[in-house]
Parts: sequence; C-alpha cells; structure tokens
Amino acid sequence: MSPPSFDVIVLGGGSGGLAAAFRAASHGAKVAMLEPALLGGTCVNVGCVPKKAMWLAADLAERITLAAGLGFEVPAAPRLSWPRLLQRRQRYIDGIHASYRQRLQDSGVAHIAQRGRLLDARTVECGDGTLLHARHIVIATGSHALKPQLPGAALGGTSDDFFALQAPPARVAIVGGGYIAVELAGVMQALGSDVTLLVRGQRLLTGFDAGMTEQLARNLAAQGVAVRFGCQVQALQRRGDGIQPHLQGGPADAVFDTVLFATGRAPSTHGLGLEAAGVALDDKGAIVVDAFQDTSVQGISAVGDVTAQAMLTPVAIAAARRLMDRLYGGQPEARLDYDNIPSVVFSHPPLGSVGLSEEQARERFDSVSTYHSRFRPMLQALGDGEMRSLFKMVCAGADEKVVGIHLLGEGADEILQGFAVALKAGVTRRQMEDTVAIHPTSAEEVVLMR
Amino acid sequence: MSPPSFDVIVLGGGSGGLAAAFRAASHGAKVAMLEPALLGGTCVNVGCVPKKAMWLAADLAERITLAAGLGFEVPAAPRLSWPRLLQRRQRYIDGIHASYRQRLQDSGVAHIAQRGRLLDARTVECGDGTLLHARHIVIATGSHALKPQLPGAALGGTSDDFFALQAPPARVAIVGGGYIAVELAGVMQALGSDVTLLVRGQRLLTGFDAGMTEQLARNLAAQGVAVRFGCQVQALQRRGDGIQPHLQGGPADAVFDTVLFATGRAPSTHGLGLEAAGVALDDKGAIVVDAFQDTSVQGISAVGDVTAQAMLTPVAIAAARRLMDRLYGGQPEARLDYDNIPSVVFSHPPLGSVGLSEEQARERFDSVSTYHSRFRPMLQALGDGEMRSLFKMVCAGADEKVVGIHLLGEGADEILQGFAVALKAGVTRRQMEDTVAIHPTSAEEVVLMR
Repeated sequence: MSPPSFDVIVLGGGSGGLAAAFRAASHGAKVAMLEPALLGGTCVNVGCVPKKAMWLAADLAERITLAAGLGFEVPAAPRLSWPRLLQRRQRYIDGIHASYRQRLQDSGVAHIAQRGRLLDARTVECGDGTLLHARHIVIATGSHALKPQLPGAALGGTSDDFFALQAPPARVAIVGGGYIAVELAGVMQALGSDVTLLVRGQRLLTGFDAGMTEQLARNLAAQGVAVRFGCQVQALQRRGDGIQPHLQGGPADAVFDTVLFATGRAPSTHGLGLEAAGVALDDKGAIVVDAFQDTSVQGISAVGDVTAQAMLTPVAIAAARRLMDRLYGGQPEARLDYDNIPSVVFSHPPLGSVGLSEEQARERFDSVSTYHSRFRPMLQALGDGEMRSLFKMVCAGADEKVVGIHLLGEGADEILQGFAVALKAGVTRRQMEDTVAIHPTSAEEVVLMR
Repeated sequence: MSPPSFDVIVLGGGSGGLAAAFRAASHGAKVAMLEPALLGGTCVNVGCVPKKAMWLAADLAERITLAAGLGFEVPAAPRLSWPRLLQRRQRYIDGIHASYRQRLQDSGVAHIAQRGRLLDARTVECGDGTLLHARHIVIATGSHALKPQLPGAALGGTSDDFFALQAPPARVAIVGGGYIAVELAGVMQALGSDVTLLVRGQRLLTGFDAGMTEQLARNLAAQGVAVRFGCQVQALQRRGDGIQPHLQGGPADAVFDTVLFATGRAPSTHGLGLEAAGVALDDKGAIVVDAFQDTSVQGISAVGDVTAQAMLTPVAIAAARRLMDRLYGGQPEARLDYDNIPSVVFSHPPLGSVGLSEEQARERFDSVSTYHSRFRPMLQALGDGEMRSLFKMVCAGADEKVVGIHLLGEGADEILQGFAVALKAGVTRRQMEDTVAIHPTSAEEVVLMR
C-alpha cells in the first residue's frame, strides 16, 4: 500500500503553519499539518498572546494608580492575585486552542499530532514511522529562545520561564536590549518585581530610531527599572538564596532571585531532515527562501521564524496566505512585500514603528526632514502621571514623502496601524496635514507634528 | 486721532479664533483678538476637553471593574470623589488658559477682553466704545447649546449644566439622539447616574452608518442606559423633588432629578452687528461662507461653528489656519477640504467614523462592497467584560476604493486617525490588506476584515 498522499503537508502548527493549512484548504487543497505540541506555537503559548495579557495587567496597574490620583477610591498600588491572572490568561489561550481545533475540523485539514521529518522533497516520516507523500511541503516550525553559552547559564531562564512564573520574583535581572528584554522589564516592574536590565551595548533596540530608544530608556528608568548599558554577563553563580551574575561593566555584588536571558532566538530546524532533502540553511541556521518563500529544493517552501525573516506573527501569517494563494489560489504573483512592516514593542508606554529610522533615511536619501511632537496625554495630566509621549515622523525628498513613523506613548500600539497603511501607500507630509485632526486624542498629534 | 488699526481683527477667542490669530501673527500680521469670556471657547471650557476628562474617568471606572475580574484587589465599582475629579479637570483647563495667555503674549496678538460689534466691514466697536480698524475681520464666535421651546424647559439644562454638576444626580434624563446626547448618557451612567435617553426618532446619530448605530444603541443598553426611541418631550413639570417630562411615546410616570437637553446648538451671531456690515446668514442663522471662508462682505471671513460647517474643533482650527495662510502666508489657493473629515463619538466604547456610511455609498456608487469584523478585545475576555467591537469598511468601484471606515470599540478613538489619512489619500482594499497587521491589537482587525 502506498503512503497517504496530500497536496500540501505543513510542518508546524504555529501561526504561520495554521495560516498555510487553512488557506490551502480554503482553495480546495488536501492538507495535512504535523504539530506535536500546542497549536498556535510561540505566539499563542509563549509569545504575543500571554505577553499581551501580562502587559494588559501591567497597564491596568498603571491606570489604577492614575485613577487614585483622579479621585477613585482605590489603592494606588493594588495587590494582584497572580493565580487569578494566570487562570484568566490560560482560559484565553485555551479558547484559542479550541477555536483552532474547531477550524481544523471544519476546514478538513488532517491534524497529525506528531513531529515530521523529511526523507526527500516529497516524503515526510511522522514520529510513529508513518510515511506521507505531498506535492508541496511547507516548513513552519518557528523558532525557540536561546541561552548564551556561559558558565552557570542553567541558573537563568528565558521568556519561556517568565510565562511559567506563578508569582512575581522580588529581584529580577533581564539580560538583553532587544524588544523581548524591554517588554519583560516593563511588565515585571509594573507587576511588582524590582527589575534590572543588563544591556551589553550602549542602546536599546538596535535598528529602531535612536531618538526614540533614548526616550524609551528614560521611560524605563522613570518606571523604576535599573537600566545598565555596557554590561556583559560572563557567568551566573548561586549565591545564598539568589543568583549572582559576574558582570563586566556592571555592579560586582548584585544578587537576583530570577535571571532571564532575552539574548536571542534561533530557527527551529533540528531533526527536520533538511539535510536529507537538501534544503539550504544560512550561516545562522535559518532556512534560505526566495521572494516567493521557496527554498533551495523544488516543492519545499518555508514561512515565518524558521526563515528568520522579520520574526513577527503577522508576517508568518501573511507570507503563508500569499504562498497558498500562489500555489492553489490562482494568483501566480502573490507574495509578501517585506517593506514597511509595522511593529510595536509593548513597553510602558508602547513604542510603535514603521518604515525607516532617521539614521536609515539619512543613509538612503539626500533630503531628509523630521517632525516631532512631545506632549503629555490628558490622562497623565489629570492623574499626575509622569509619562510623556514622543512622536516622530521622517520624510524624504522634495515632496516630503513619509518614510518613517515612530510613536512612543499611550495608545501607540493602536494608533500605528492606520498610519502604516498610509505610509505604505506612499503619502506625503502634505497629505498628513490635509487630514483633519480628531480631538482630543493622542493620534491627532501625528497629523499635527511640526 | 484715528482709531488703532490692525491687519486682522478676530472676533472670538475659541479654538478657531485663537488659531486664526496665532497663524496670522506667525505670518507677520498685526492682530487683535476680541474675546470677553474664557479663552478656548466651547471646546476648552464646556466641550471637548472637560467632556474627554469625564470620559476618561468613566473609562477608568470600567477598567477598574475589568481589573477586579482579572485579579486586582480593587472594588469592582469603586467610589469616586467628584470634587477631586472636578478639581483635576479644572486644573487641566486652567493650564490650557495659561498656555494660551502665554502664546498670545509671545506672538504679539493684542487680546482685548471685550465683545466686538461690527459698525461696517472695516470697523469694530469694542464693548467699552473703543473703535478699531482692520483690513480683514474674522468672525469665530462659535455656537451655543439650545433648549427647545416647550413648557417648563427652564427646569431642564444643557451640556453646559452637565459640566457645572458637582455630584452625579441619581436619576437623569437626556433628551436627544445626537453625539452629545450619546456621550452624556454613557459618561453619566458610568459615573454613577441612572440614565434614560429620550430619542425622538427611531435611531441614534443620523448620518452615521445605521449598522454601527444599532450596535451603539445595544451597547448603551448593555451599559444600563434605558434607551427610548420614538419618544418626544412635550413639557417639563416639577413633581415632588424631581422633574417629570410629559412624553409622547414614552413612560407616563417617569421622574428625574436632572433633565438635560442635547437637542441642538445654534451659531452665536447675536449682537455682532452683522446686519450693519451686511453679512448674510442662512435660514438657520449661520454665517454663509464660500469655499475660502469668505462671507458675502469683502474683507470679512468666518470660521468654525458660527458657519455651521462640520461643527468640530479641529475643523475650525484647520479652516482658520488655511485662511490665514491664504491671506498672509503667500498661499493663494489655501483652503480646507471639507471631504472625509474623521470624527469620534466618545461613547463607551467609542465610535469613530470617516467617509461614507454604507447607505450613502450605495446612493453614490453602483458597486459597493462591505467588510466587517466583530470581535471581543483581549482585555474584555480576560476581565469578563461584555463589550464587543464592531468594525466596518465600505468600498466602492471595481478597484474597491475605501470610501468609509466605521469603528465601534475599545481604542476606536485612537485607531481612526491613521486610517483617515489613508482613506483621504485614496487607498484601496488591496492596499489595506497588503499592510502587515500589528498583533495583538484591535487596530489590526481593520486590515484583516473580511
């Protein structure tokens, strides 16, 4: 008997894999999806979703403080039941799992709860030894958090361990200066920990606009986070009831209850049989794909973090959908445009960014102009809050085409999306100004910047 | 001695008048501004600003309820000190007044704290009899809340009286179905009153998309507001310690502590000497202006509510700035484009809208397509909140140009501005879809609508 045959086999049931499977099925393809662990991958289980839940709790903590200032009879620093919060967070995630299971059933996708390994470009071996054949194979196995190789690293955790915490540790060190480090620092400080951020370089969020990240660092400090730049962890050591990092360029005697590394993530390619199939990896271990998500092997494509292209959930989803629109939807040119992808760092307040930083724009264009707005949102003023907002627009050329928008402040997470559409559509500063403001909001400052 | 002479005399120191004065001065014009009352007009003193302050308090009350559900040790319905809230609100308004006074001083605008009356197209008589001459006169005297003419109307108040309240009345009737009525109803219900909304017609917010306003009415009802459609107030009468409205089509025996009319506003033209100068009014008493804000009299222009064009603060400001850019800034074609003005109704949750409703689009175009997203924001799910969001996009033509965006839900107030820029710039549905989503947000639903 020949192995069962599919149009598409998707390896991985994270956001990208699910999107690929659902879109292919919607075009009438016969689809199998192999996912041995939790549906939804990093995003749903140990990424965006639980992170946003914790951020929402942190945001509520800050608003309650403002509410106390404004006249509400609430404690300015209320106690929080972590078991209740975690129960609600898990209930939400369980709901997403159930919804995915229902959609898999409704769409006719065969969900196989096993790992898959390529034997060749058309054959997948399941964990139990079953063989499957397919015309197309899509690899969407995502990425995983890395710990640095240093003595005592096992004493530290990663973002995965943050999500496993059952209570806020008193003293926390977070190692890293990227968006995950910044997000963990802000959330943990707001939810009751005393956080130190250990950053190897001299700035946060390399690649973001430097003026914005300087303000972000000041915000973290104002929130109570100890931000240490130029500070390299060389080892971790147990010391009494805590963990002591050996620091080059940092305090010699600091001891923490919890140390979390947010120093990088790696594409999850181990054990997939990529060598057997001949799928090429780059020097960082990511699957090499072309503009259409195709790998070096005909019939094998890859989407999402495993390709290390803009490691964001909506990117994986969008790339997966376009791939299936191309293969099965009669859209031979469909592909994701990786330019001008907006993203938000869920700091306190959040930082949203689309397009070029001022530095990148000055490298690329002769004529660059920038506009700013620095203001105190009404809620902060009413409640004696300290957080100011800083918005920045970067324009290029004589017609002042908008090439970068950077928003740090209350609501930036929700404000950015529409401006990302406008920027991608090629609007000029004049078109921004010609749009009437919505008053009183924070968003209006974007069209009123001078 | 001849009267003092100015390039520009501005009648009215509200948002539009101030914007006209500041912009004219920035172009080097010699400017006088006559304002006998509080700087900032309706918006700052009895409009947008105190309204938003009360809305922010109402929003905090709702978030505290959600926070209690999520595990914070706070009362689910906390007490609120109105004196403290009002003191903070006034402090904020005082800050705006001080900022305006400083800007007036810095910009060299002569602020005359008196009423002005036109004697002819070039001469203004101040309240104290002083005469002033000007090359241009700008009328920006705004509008005022009206009460209907019916027996006992004096027992009721208007939005001005809402802002004078020192404590929440127990039983409140709000008369009207426009945005002010909806906003007052939501805020007062959230801050502790038991609100009944008496609407003459069969729907809220005439001119807005009907599908959205139906959901808005359901939200008000879910919030606890008694919404009565087809209910006309014929008289008010004192009854015991309360006020009883005589209602056609409503309950016969309802008694309220406070009745507020939100049934309309009228342009403030009384006593301005418009007849003497020959300035034409329309049949509703608004000053008639052309596309360049010029009245029927050469040299006299008008901006803002007094012209009854899109009675919104940012419209008055934008029109005033463009007028002065045209008169003194060397931009002979400068004028405000009144198409596609975005606006937000600060209901709970807010309703933002730009462009055409579905009904308007179907009248204007042969081919209309609509897209929707109905969802429960994560915070509502985590905190057991009941509020769902409803987003709607209206497209026209074969290329599906986006002609209307309607957002009802948490964050809609901040989400809309960027999409308003995109819509005004002429984006298509395809361009919306081509923009990568920002996850997890409410805003991403706008680019993911199906």
